[in-house]
Amino acid sequence: MTGEWTPAGVISITTDFGTADGYVGAMHGVIATVSPVLRVIDLTHAVAPQCLREAAFHLAGAWRFFPVGTVHLVVVDPGVGTQRGSLVAEAGGHVFVAPDNGVLPLALESLPGLASEPVGVSWRLLDTERFLRPNASRTFHGRDLYAPVVAALASGHLTPETAGEASGDPVRVPLEPPRVEDDGPRRRLRGEVLHVDRFGNVLTNLHARHAGLAGQDLGRAGMQLAGREVPFVSTYGDASPGQLVALVDSFDLIEVARVDGSAAAALGVAVGDPVTLIL
Amino acid sequence: MTGEWTPAGVISITTDFGTADGYVGAMHGVIATVSPVLRVIDLTHAVAPQCLREAAFHLAGAWRFFPVGTVHLVVVDPGVGTQRGSLVAEAGGHVFVAPDNGVLPLALESLPGLASEPVGVSWRLLDTERFLRPNASRTFHGRDLYAPVVAALASGHLTPETAGEASGDPVRVPLEPPRVEDDGPRRRLRGEVLHVDRFGNVLTNLHARHAGLAGQDLGRAGMQLAGREVPFVSTYGDASPGQLVALVDSFDLIEVARVDGSAAAALGVAVGDPVTLIL
Amino acid sequence: MTGEWTPAGVISITTDFGTADGYVGAMHGVIATVSPVLRVIDLTHAVAPQCLREAAFHLAGAWRFFPVGTVHLVVVDPGVGTQRGSLVAEAGGHVFVAPDNGVLPLALESLPGLASEPVGVSWRLLDTERFLRPNASRTFHGRDLYAPVVAALASGHLTPETAGEASGDPVRVPLEPPRVEDDGPRRRLRGEVLHVDRFGNVLTNLHARHAGLAGQDLGRAGMQLAGREVPFVSTYGDASPGQLVALVDSFDLIEVARVDGSAAAALGVAVGDPVTLIL
Repeated sequence: MTGEWTPAGVISITTDFGTADGYVGAMHGVIATVSPVLRVIDLTHAVAPQCLREAAFHLAGAWRFFPVGTVHLVVVDPGVGTQRGSLVAEAGGHVFVAPDNGVLPLALESLPGLASEPVGVSWRLLDTERFLRPNASRTFHGRDLYAPVVAALASGHLTPETAGEASGDPVRVPLEPPRVEDDGPRRRLRGEVLHVDRFGNVLTNLHARHAGLAGQDLGRAGMQLAGREVPFVSTYGDASPGQLVALVDSFDLIEVARVDGSAAAALGVAVGDPVTLIL
Repeated sequence: MTGEWTPAGVISITTDFGTADGYVGAMHGVIATVSPVLRVIDLTHAVAPQCLREAAFHLAGAWRFFPVGTVHLVVVDPGVGTQRGSLVAEAGGHVFVAPDNGVLPLALESLPGLASEPVGVSWRLLDTERFLRPNASRTFHGRDLYAPVVAALASGHLTPETAGEASGDPVRVPLEPPRVEDDGPRRRLRGEVLHVDRFGNVLTNLHARHAGLAGQDLGRAGMQLAGREVPFVSTYGDASPGQLVALVDSFDLIEVARVDGSAAAALGVAVGDPVTLIL
Repeated sequence: MTGEWTPAGVISITTDFGTADGYVGAMHGVIATVSPVLRVIDLTHAVAPQCLREAAFHLAGAWRFFPVGTVHLVVVDPGVGTQRGSLVAEAGGHVFVAPDNGVLPLALESLPGLASEPVGVSWRLLDTERFLRPNASRTFHGRDLYAPVVAALASGHLTPETAGEASGDPVRVPLEPPRVEDDGPRRRLRGEVLHVDRFGNVLTNLHARHAGLAGQDLGRAGMQLAGREVPFVSTYGDASPGQLVALVDSFDLIEVARVDGSAAAALGVAVGDPVTLIL
């Protein structure tokens, strides 16, 4: 697939750095030093410290909304300063750069159907020594390694093919997929809470594509969580203020929401809690 | 007024999405897909969930500081997924896009004098069906409807005149204006707290233009709130650290501040609390 | 040094405004009004209200990572509306603009070695009256004075030489440097906590250059703080999860960290607490 990639001059950045400490600003400075005309978009910097899965979730849900030719950088890096390598991946005409710690396979291979279709991925191990800034720190590779690399890729000074050797074996971390149970009177899908957003919407790892749900009428289905059963609607507007509803959300994930309120607060649920879809 | 508008290639965005969940990043990605050279400025994404009035306040205070030809997008949208329409407004050489839920009339017509002069507004109902992204979600119109529309407007691919039919009747939500009381020994203006900022400054809905205040000497006036009367100064520097003062702020609003501290914390006031200006 | 400066079209902004209130967005709007092609990078807006030292720390650590020719703006301004002046400084091919309240001398002269080498600085007093926006407020110079000035400097409409008169005497605020104690069996450096970042890393004002530490083997040294002694490692990866370690960080500062956790929380330390390096 490598021949397909043409840089769009756009970079997305996802980190667990927050925006208060100036770390992200310094990365923007390094990128502007390579080329001040690149467009750099902060996807989020609020990933929980060291949480690969949350970073992967955000990237998986967003990358297809960027231009073909975008370079996506993820720096959630508990292993900075160890011998862990770094990856340059290509998929769907986009390029992805991150530590080789599992975050990119989670985002591009494992997360349940956030991509509308599975996508072929080619993996390379970044030739790190070639790209580290002179006098690079051992604790801030976002600034001293990854920022110059993604700037070079996004401005066309570097191609993915020449960034390092092909690799068939990136580090992968396990992610338990939803479990289908067909043995009762009604079919069940057991999953868990994947994310709670600012509105208190509860996003699960159950996807409209699972178990042939796509296009299926969910009108008689329900979501069980926190000891409650929540009915499905088509959209928030089909329910009254305060009501708990389940619906297929903007990532094609099954979500539990409270109209004009916080479902997470009303139900007392958090990331990792079990959920069951009853068909 | 429509003939006056020429796009400046600049977009401002105001939402209640926060910046943690990647929603805003995805909107930036969609805009960059239409044109990577647009300049996209985040006005604020910290509006309280569903709070039209707070969003309107931020837009009303800021839009005149952007270039003529800017497209301003507001997405605070409790009715997403319902039949509510969307507006494209023109005022003062700027274009404004938002759900037809009252937020734009609040910002452009109702808020007390944040604009230095009242401004003529022309309203259009966006031809929604024409602009929804293919496979648009029913819960995230910021990404699937508004981002592509403002990108098309800001890059000149779309003109406001062709975005939809003229409309004389956008949805308006009531906002009680300050009340003048002329019957006592001293004239009084009764209003309320409109916003509390990061410094704890208490911004009210009383404006320097109200009741002929513009240019008037406020040296003998006082602000009553939380059972205290606070004297006027010209600027923070006229008072000592810790002192509570009232002054005309950078929005031409009457504000109560505490020098080198938080007036809101010292007084225990919050948005909506009553205030009285005594002349 | 003034002849060396050529604008790169890049501006960095550091303030204590937060990003919730729209103040920073309005500054971006004013800059875009001068020139929509400037690249504006938010270094941080989360400086504690009025805290010059924190703002100086962020600028000192980051400015060298921006392109030569960048204009750096710092607006932490307890004296807004008083007679305090404003500075335009040049150093190392960069330009710096801020209120004349001590923040720039702290960043460029005093902070311990955040710059890899001391840098010569030339100072000018901004000719304020010439640059205030028409109808400028007395409380928001970030929008009404500094934004148009840095936009003019960054776009080449204004040169530092013509921005105001040379000044040899900017306002300086005292900063106690680390103290060396050579009288015991082991040499000691006494300093303090300078910053705690999002990860709970404890950054101190002790720098690798101090007291001939550069290149020295710190393997037998230790850091004392909160009644604990913490051993040195080369990088996070040399220790186990949960372990407290001291190391030279990405600013060349001595830092105490907890692998996969928060050192500040584990030790109960905060900005200003004393620390001692024992060699």
